[in-house]
Parts: sequence; C-alpha cells; structure tokens
Amino acid sequence: MPEQSIHSERRSRAAALLATLNPKQPLDCLVVSGRENVRYLTGFTGSNSMLLVFADGRSILYTDPRYTIQAEQQADCRVKIAKGSLTTELMDDFDRSGKLWIAVEKEHLTIGAFEAFTKILPARAAVEAVAGPVEKLRMVKDAGEIELIRQSVILNSAAFEAALKRVKAGITETDVAAEIDYRSRKLGADGPAFETIVAAGEHAALPHAQPGLAKIGPGMLLIDMGAFLGGYASDMTRMVHIGKAPARYRKAYKAVQEAQLAAFDKVKAGVTSKAVDAVTRKTLKAHGLDKEFVHSTGHGLGLEIHEAPRIGRKDSTKLEAGMVITIEPGVYFEGWGGIRIEDTVLVTKTGCEILTPTSKEQIEI
Amino acid sequence: MPEQSIHSERRSRAAALLATLNPKQPLDCLVVSGRENVRYLTGFTGSNSMLLVFADGRSILYTDPRYTIQAEQQADCRVKIAKGSLTTELMDDFDRSGKLWIAVEKEHLTIGAFEAFTKILPARAAVEAVAGPVEKLRMVKDAGEIELIRQSVILNSAAFEAALKRVKAGITETDVAAEIDYRSRKLGADGPAFETIVAAGEHAALPHAQPGLAKIGPGMLLIDMGAFLGGYASDMTRMVHIGKAPARYRKAYKAVQEAQLAAFDKVKAGVTSKAVDAVTRKTLKAHGLDKEFVHSTGHGLGLEIHEAPRIGRKDSTKLEAGMVITIEPGVYFEGWGGIRIEDTVLVTKTGCEILTPTSKEQIEI
Repeated sequence: MPEQSIHSERRSRAAALLATLNPKQPLDCLVVSGRENVRYLTGFTGSNSMLLVFADGRSILYTDPRYTIQAEQQADCRVKIAKGSLTTELMDDFDRSGKLWIAVEKEHLTIGAFEAFTKILPARAAVEAVAGPVEKLRMVKDAGEIELIRQSVILNSAAFEAALKRVKAGITETDVAAEIDYRSRKLGADGPAFETIVAAGEHAALPHAQPGLAKIGPGMLLIDMGAFLGGYASDMTRMVHIGKAPARYRKAYKAVQEAQLAAFDKVKAGVTSKAVDAVTRKTLKAHGLDKEFVHSTGHGLGLEIHEAPRIGRKDSTKLEAGMVITIEPGVYFEGWGGIRIEDTVLVTKTGCEILTPTSKEQIEI
Repeated sequence: MPEQSIHSERRSRAAALLATLNPKQPLDCLVVSGRENVRYLTGFTGSNSMLLVFADGRSILYTDPRYTIQAEQQADCRVKIAKGSLTTELMDDFDRSGKLWIAVEKEHLTIGAFEAFTKILPARAAVEAVAGPVEKLRMVKDAGEIELIRQSVILNSAAFEAALKRVKAGITETDVAAEIDYRSRKLGADGPAFETIVAAGEHAALPHAQPGLAKIGPGMLLIDMGAFLGGYASDMTRMVHIGKAPARYRKAYKAVQEAQLAAFDKVKAGVTSKAVDAVTRKTLKAHGLDKEFVHSTGHGLGLEIHEAPRIGRKDSTKLEAGMVITIEPGVYFEGWGGIRIEDTVLVTKTGCEILTPTSKEQIEI
C-alpha cells in the first residue's frame, strides 16, 4: 500500500527533526495536535486526534470512540482510543523512568490545552513549544501531493466552466455560489476549500465578500473558488463582466494581469516570497494602483487552503521546487468594485508551472 | 438599528464580566480573539480580527485592510485597520500610565500567539488567561438568536425533504450530499454548518463518515446535515431505509427513538447536562445497546455547530431556558451500520421545544 509507506516515511522525517528543533538538547518526542498535521503524518482525517511521534520512530495516534473504525481503516500506525481526554491517555505512553523532552506545536495548542497538558505531565518532563515543524515538512509537496493538487485545480476549473454557463444578469450571488459548489461536488470534490466568493459590482470591492441575495449585473462579477479533492486544495479567482466592460474596468484588469505575469516571471526556486510580492506591488505601482492592493500576493496551499509560505511583504522563505502557491494580485475601490486574478502555481527549479488551465482573457457575457 | 443595539448590549455584558473573572482583582480589559466571539459582540464576520473590550464599556475592533469596507459596514463599534499584526496595533490602545490587568481567552489564543502578545506588552501589564467568558454569554440565546436558529432548522428540514426526493438505490453518497448542500443554499443558507454526512450501509457505523463514491442501497442510509442561516446553525440526523427494513434495523431504530424521547422528557431548565446524557444511556442499556453508543447525547449550537454545553457524561452545566442543544443518541455496529436520530431543541422553563419539524417515523423508500 503506497499511501501507507508515504505516511510512515513522513513520520520518520518528523522524528528526525526532533534532533534539530532545540540546538542545545535533542527532544524525545513531538506531540502533534494540528488536525492537518495528523492527517499528513498518518492519513487519519477525524476531527479529534493527537499524534505522538518518538525520536526513535515509533508513533501512536489518539482519538475518541466515534472514530474507532475510521482510525483503524485510515491510519497506518498504532491507534489508541481514549474514553476521556486524549491528553490524559497520551500521558500513559511517556516513559517515566528518565528525563523526557517533549515538543508541542505552539501554533496548534491553545493556552488552555497547554495548561491542561502541563498539569498532568510526569515530573521529569520538560516541554518545548516549537513553531511548525510539520508545516515545514508540508511546504514542499511530494509527487503524490502535486498530482492531487493538479487534479483539484482541474476539477475546480471544470466547475467554474460549468457554473459560468448559468451566470446571467438577474440571478443572485448566492445562486451562482450554490451552482459552483454543486458542480464541484458532482465532479467529485470532497467539498469547497473555503466559502465560495461571488461578488457583484461594488461588492467586489470587499476582497472576502460573502455571497448574498444581491442581483448580478450588468457589471463586474468576481468569483473566487476552490475545491478539496483527496484532501488537497485548489484556489482560483476570475472576473466576469456582464455586458460590455467600461474603460476603467479594462484598464484595471490589464494592470492586475500584468502584475500577475510579473510575479510568474519572478517565481523560481531560490527566490524569496517577499521578492515575488515586491515585483507584484511594483508593477501595480507603475499603474498608480499600489494603494488599492490591500493584501498579499499569494499563499501556499495543500491540506489547508492557506499554508506556508505567505507570499507577502515580510516573508523571507526561499521558494523551493515542489512548493505550490497562489499568485493573486487584486485592486479594490470602495463604491465601485474590485478586480482580482488568481492562479495556483507549482514552483520549479527553473521557474513555475501555472496549474490553473482556465483562460485569463477578459470575459464578457 | 436593533442589530446594533444588541451587539452593544452584549459588549456591555462582557465588560461587566471583567469585574468577576478574577475574584481577587477586577480586570481592566478583555482581548477577544475567538472569531465567533468577535461576531457575537460586534457583528463583524471577517476571518482576521481581535476585539478589545474595556471594563468601562469602550470597545475597539481590529482587522486588516482586506476588511476595511466590510468592518465599517458590519461593526457598530470603533474599528482600527492594522497594516501589520493585530496584536501590535492593539498595544497602542493600552493605557500605559498605570498597572493594567488584561484578560485573554485561553481557548482561543495559541501558545505561539500568546508568546507574541506577552513579548510586546507594556511593562506594567499583567495577563490573565480566562476560560470562555464570551462562550458563557453565548450559551443562553436571546430572542433574535432563537428566531434565527428556528429559521435555520426549518430551512434545513426543507432541504432534507427536497433532497430526499432524489434519493434512490444506485446513486452515490456524494450525489446525495451535493444535492443536500445545493438545496440548502438555494433555500437561502449561508452554507453547510459542517461537512454533510451521508453514509450508506456499513459506512453508517462511522459516526462521522465522509460521503464517498459508494453506491446507495438497498439498505440503511444515515444523513446528518446542518445549515448556517444568518450565522446560526441547525443540526439534524435522519435515517432512511432503501427497501424494506429488516427486524434488526427496526429494533435498533426503536431503541434509539426511545432513548431520544427519554432525553426530551428530561430536558428542562435546572437539570444538568450529564443528567440528560445519563437518561439516554440508561434507556439504551435497557436494550443492551449502551456499549454501541460511542458519543455524547448532544451539544449546544449557535454561531458554531458545536458550542457549550456538551450534553455528555461529565458536563455539569445546569440547563437554562434559552439554551439550544441537540439530542442525538446513536448506536453503531462495525460491519453492519449505525442508527442515529437527532433534533435541535430549545430548553424552556418547563421542558423543551423540539424545533426540528421533520418526522421521525421510520422512512422506507
């Protein structure tokens, strides 16, 4: 079973990290509490889980009785079903005979959960809250993950094409969103990767608009949609203009398109995230539109719709071949609308591959 | 604008709590970081926000430039747009002249966020991590919230009825889930309240099964579905049997139904959550089915699909009039299937009102 060997290989890599997380002290085990991290390392998708990865390679997955059967089916490591709290169950598996160095995920454990955890720790244990060791592994995708994202992106574009046929003036934003989600599911998606954004006219000025009962067109329509397929996300934004687009729209569209192309040209293994963001921003500035670009250029995606790296002003992550990111410049004008174009791209040694097959020509319908 | 006065009244109640959270020391302000808590207190629905509530009643909402327009439209308190981290922006609003007692939400701040927060705190500040003050307010719903939940429940049942017409042997679990989500959206839902569960035959043995490409029937079909409407959740589980149901199924169905009725009889203001759970468990035990009941009897719902109280073995919350909870006993048999029946109910002074209008008679199609 190839899926199993992948998870077990990932756990070995996580175990190997334990020697490096604290330069002064090798750690004995990592408590994984982030849901997608547990999925990445075991295949288990339940909503309540923790995973203990020991430096020697052993792993134990903890979940509750709702998931007894599912955990057996999905996970390829030892599984324990906790009747009470997972944390309490997990304590039994710490070796109490000597000093124990335990790493916990600082981005996934709340203060409350951490307090509960430390309260029942063996006396000889020391806890180190570490930043995203599993997220670091997840940044660079393996061949299987890239294939799943590729399929997710293709499915997402197919759902867009299918839904687009139903778009016309007079129907509501919600109608379009419902149509998109339906088409996506019928094409085999696990579900939407985030709440589908369908924003007509001046609603498009809100980068994260929620679809409402507003009637569409004539005028601009922004659609930002993504699917999960086999657990992996896709993400795309396209603009549609109902009726003939005015000059202001066409000009802004061209500027955003140019900014996206400039980012594509910049993306390549070895380049920093912020350098990609900078070139997008610079291109929009040349059009006098930098102040209207109110978010980052993009983000990594995979088991989550937003994951590392962030393609933004401050992220100095060096891109690596196998990372999958979005490139999505946008400009927003209160009272008028907004324009964003977004593709999912794979970073390669020599540049990038744009995975999204949907055309970026201006669409007027 | 009544909506505004509700949020402002809620903030006053949150501010009043600051005097009571630490018995030794009244606190000066509460940093609200839970997304639904921010929504509850301001109306703002953006994905990135923090709210500062001072004991004197002032409040400031922080978000990022993606939400400039949306925050102005939705929130009825002062809004600040942070270019960098919200935490950094928020520091500017602490009075640095005297000792300052700050409460943070221990269930919503990760260790990492807490570290970042304390690192830049004014020297004279003390931080107290408190457990769910806003969640406590949210447990008892006001009239407007109850009305929204009522509408959400009715919409959810209507979507079930509409989707049920399409259910027949030969279509897939995913087809049914897509149909449900589509109907729900077309009826006006914001979206599904959780990933719709459609589990055929032995898949129903997994309480949280994910719909797949398995073909339906003949045999049992478990559907667990919920919608968000105006931000508020509904939650319902129904069983459908494709073809004539065998005796084993009918017997188990009757036992679960009886357990649910016993719970309804028990629910009433003043009764504890665990007493309701106990009566459900006892009823199933009388049928020799207590070991097959692998989860809690139910949970509160509102802005989140799962919120306090938990109707489980260990929760000693006293039910109050205005709480809205689910009652959902279920029994699960590996290799055979599972049966669950779930309604959304409103706790009243004298008992409860079952909000879910859908029949619980055995359905055979």
